[in-house]
Amino acid sequence: MSAAPNGAGCELCSSAGGLLLWRDDTWRVIRVDDDAFPAFYRVICNRHVGEFSELSAAERQRCMNLVCAVERALIASLAPTKINLAALGNVVPHLHWHVIARFDWDSRFPQPIWAGAQREVVPPPLERLACPLPVLDDAVRAALHAVA
Amino acid sequence: MSAAPNGAGCELCSSAGGLLLWRDDTWRVIRVDDDAFPAFYRVICNRHVGEFSELSAAERQRCMNLVCAVERALIASLAPTKINLAALGNVVPHLHWHVIARFDWDSRFPQPIWAGAQREVVPPPLERLACPLPVLDDAVRAALHAVA
Repeated sequence: MSAAPNGAGCELCSSAGGLLLWRDDTWRVIRVDDDAFPAFYRVICNRHVGEFSELSAAERQRCMNLVCAVERALIASLAPTKINLAALGNVVPHLHWHVIARFDWDSRFPQPIWAGAQREVVPPPLERLACPLPVLDDAVRAALHAVA
Repeated sequence: MSAAPNGAGCELCSSAGGLLLWRDDTWRVIRVDDDAFPAFYRVICNRHVGEFSELSAAERQRCMNLVCAVERALIASLAPTKINLAALGNVVPHLHWHVIARFDWDSRFPQPIWAGAQREVVPPPLERLACPLPVLDDAVRAALHAVA
């Protein structure tokens, strides 16, 4: 079912949806503020689209080029155990892609981040990343600027 | 971290990974046998690749064209509340995309399928789909054959 075309009441139509790192006419990328998963970014469609398949072929290609750029920046900066990609939108049916660096020490690994916690993480995740978040944000931003 | 290039011990290198519906040299599509989420398909890379970003641009484009074809077939056949797409691979780090039709009555909605159950579904999900699974499989297969 398509999301309402006007996006009335949609929180991704009325706010950036997180720390805005990069934006063009069609897409934006934010970092999610999540202590358990600090290397968690979203590629968000600026217009109110519900499903990936509602995009044109060219839009889908650009979308996934941006997702791929974020993924590569996270891999190069953090050497995570795995990258997780997801477009769900059950709660907010406005197209957004989750791009999440996962580590074998994180609280849910190897389960998806939406499963129950399996362990307490000490020291906390933020202290375990290979670089500080502002440096990671810069790497993500640089990768996005390099996308045609 | 990339998956091992040879895929030794990888269950998606040694089996179809579900009910095989369609296959070409590079990709295959299976239906997952899941009573709670009967309209659950996977687009699986035939070769042992860990991360989406390890694909070439052309491979990524074809991959997402296949994902999109499955998504459109599910929307056209079932009118689901939402489609969920995900490439996780924490347990099996061999690239596969989950394409799942979600309904507001399903056991986890609006949470991801990996979250805890929120409700018992009676009558069961299979009986609530707008068409039988073999008909849905045919629609998915036809959509895949139409992808260039």
